[in-house]
Amino acid sequence: MHPEIDTPALLVDLDVVRANVTEMAKTAAAAGVRLRPHIKTHKIPELARLQLEAGATGITCAKLGEAEVMADAGIDDILLAFPVWGRPKLRRLAALRERARVRVSLDSPEVAAGLGRLGGPPVDVLVEVDTGQHRLGRPPGRPTADLVAEIAAVPGVEVVGLLTLAGHAYHARTPGELAETARREGADLVETAELCARDGIVLREISVGSTPTARHVAGVAGVTEIRPGTYIFNDTAMMRLGVATEETTAARILTTVVGRPTPERVVCDAGTKCLTSDGYGTPGWIRAAGLPYLHMNFLNEEHGVARLEPEHVGELPVGSRMQLIPSHACSVVNLFDTVYGVEDGEVITELHVAARGAVR
Amino acid sequence: MHPEIDTPALLVDLDVVRANVTEMAKTAAAAGVRLRPHIKTHKIPELARLQLEAGATGITCAKLGEAEVMADAGIDDILLAFPVWGRPKLRRLAALRERARVRVSLDSPEVAAGLGRLGGPPVDVLVEVDTGQHRLGRPPGRPTADLVAEIAAVPGVEVVGLLTLAGHAYHARTPGELAETARREGADLVETAELCARDGIVLREISVGSTPTARHVAGVAGVTEIRPGTYIFNDTAMMRLGVATEETTAARILTTVVGRPTPERVVCDAGTKCLTSDGYGTPGWIRAAGLPYLHMNFLNEEHGVARLEPEHVGELPVGSRMQLIPSHACSVVNLFDTVYGVEDGEVITELHVAARGAVR
Repeated sequence: MHPEIDTPALLVDLDVVRANVTEMAKTAAAAGVRLRPHIKTHKIPELARLQLEAGATGITCAKLGEAEVMADAGIDDILLAFPVWGRPKLRRLAALRERARVRVSLDSPEVAAGLGRLGGPPVDVLVEVDTGQHRLGRPPGRPTADLVAEIAAVPGVEVVGLLTLAGHAYHARTPGELAETARREGADLVETAELCARDGIVLREISVGSTPTARHVAGVAGVTEIRPGTYIFNDTAMMRLGVATEETTAARILTTVVGRPTPERVVCDAGTKCLTSDGYGTPGWIRAAGLPYLHMNFLNEEHGVARLEPEHVGELPVGSRMQLIPSHACSVVNLFDTVYGVEDGEVITELHVAARGAVR
Repeated sequence: MHPEIDTPALLVDLDVVRANVTEMAKTAAAAGVRLRPHIKTHKIPELARLQLEAGATGITCAKLGEAEVMADAGIDDILLAFPVWGRPKLRRLAALRERARVRVSLDSPEVAAGLGRLGGPPVDVLVEVDTGQHRLGRPPGRPTADLVAEIAAVPGVEVVGLLTLAGHAYHARTPGELAETARREGADLVETAELCARDGIVLREISVGSTPTARHVAGVAGVTEIRPGTYIFNDTAMMRLGVATEETTAARILTTVVGRPTPERVVCDAGTKCLTSDGYGTPGWIRAAGLPYLHMNFLNEEHGVARLEPEHVGELPVGSRMQLIPSHACSVVNLFDTVYGVEDGEVITELHVAARGAVR
């Protein structure tokens, strides 16, 4: 299995990537909403371009460092879905605005005031709404409408819309629960925007959606934009939620068996330094592609320790290779400088993870 | 708090580092064992040198990539505590042996056979023993003694000792349990080596110990070497085990409050991309230095979401800074290219995390 590269290594199946990118673009087009994928999943300008070529109208970044890397690659329509605070970041934002159309999300007049002092044309902002994740934002309805009015009064910013991430959808236990969470994600924002309109503030953007909720929320009347990220690679979390299958997972850790201390125990050279601890211990949080009888017991930093079902003991001797599907693709990509691109089962390219480690 | 640097950032208090390094060196010296710290915690050649200057006789690395970085910095006594397998790595190991004294740990004749074909003087190997973590290695006693005999028969390698990591010590619930696990870690290996000696194979190295067990196991008669890593920085896992206090933690994430959506909720700009998911959700897994009334609720990739105790609601407005103590220092360091070194409370230097991302 890919003897030309050493392990552990991060592989990305570009055929699967293209299919995933196309499918989500079609979903957005069919629903009549814009697609603004979050690039945190891949952090690779070439893949952002692929998404734009397939129909995305812009990208979402979490941090300025990611946005700068993407702007360096010529991408000029960026949503910064994180409150920008403090002089060093505001200076960088001002420079970024010279070469790209930038919107910023926030949930406080304090952050808005900083943006308002940037100078130049008003900064377009989206107000973040707490639709149930209990991270940033106020609840939908009157609390958010009041916040929108407060922020709209800050000189130098223009509130163009509402934004949310129904992160609690990741904990949905059934497809019905997921669909209902997604529907509420959209409906809550649309209803809040109607309240704002009655207050005299017309909002033109209703930006929602993660990979689990995107397909459901895109169809909610009034939604204008979806921002899924993980769909480009997928992972076992998406499989558990029923929005991906092993076949639609594109990012895999290629690993080698380095120890077989007992007939049932398989120790490989990929641990949390390749796979992270995200989702740790959830049943099936790490899967070995094509090896349903191998179950991950635990990870240390450099070791993956798995067990084989009784009828397979003795398989996978030292030196065997396998591909592990991570629990959370986005965090895994952030651990690698280079990704190996696979086409038709062959490694055909190396991609530089240009926005890796962009925490600021 | 450190207005000269932007957040999030990884700070390392060099005064605390020096005290931690000195204390462990004294522990080893008092017990008459050699200290071979694991550099995975810092991944920084300058800090490895500090450890050697304080009395360490060599270093431990997990991966060849780490060892190469350390050898580039002139460090010439390295234990590779991971089975080296496959032609690309064996070629790199051969090159590394030209510039450093290298030992390798393993638990199989298959891996030994690869090493044996390297050429040059025999490769010194340590056989890994499973003292209860159930990762690599066979149980102590006869199973390991038999394995040692098998590996000793492989041409081109010389078994110089036994090695273990009592990783299960991290789950100790009481100081007594920790001490007993550590004692067994040492005693199991010493007894196994006696068995090997009766088989005619004299082993000169008994290499044990992690940060939690080091102080206990160093005193076990027959132990020759301890390999703690985390002690240089410490973290909340070490605090929970009673081998560190907030004052002896050296690695901190400097973060800014970016949202205060409710009086009790504090959202900061450090999530799993700075802190990892290691230890996620364990009570006190992330602590805010000097703020015992702030409790981390959850982390997303870029957000830390915490709550204030009732008598402190309204504190920490947007723009406030705080320092978070991670659950697992080693994994956190692997996320950063640069560490800010602090002395007397001032940032005085930037250190390059030269071995970051060295998964191979």
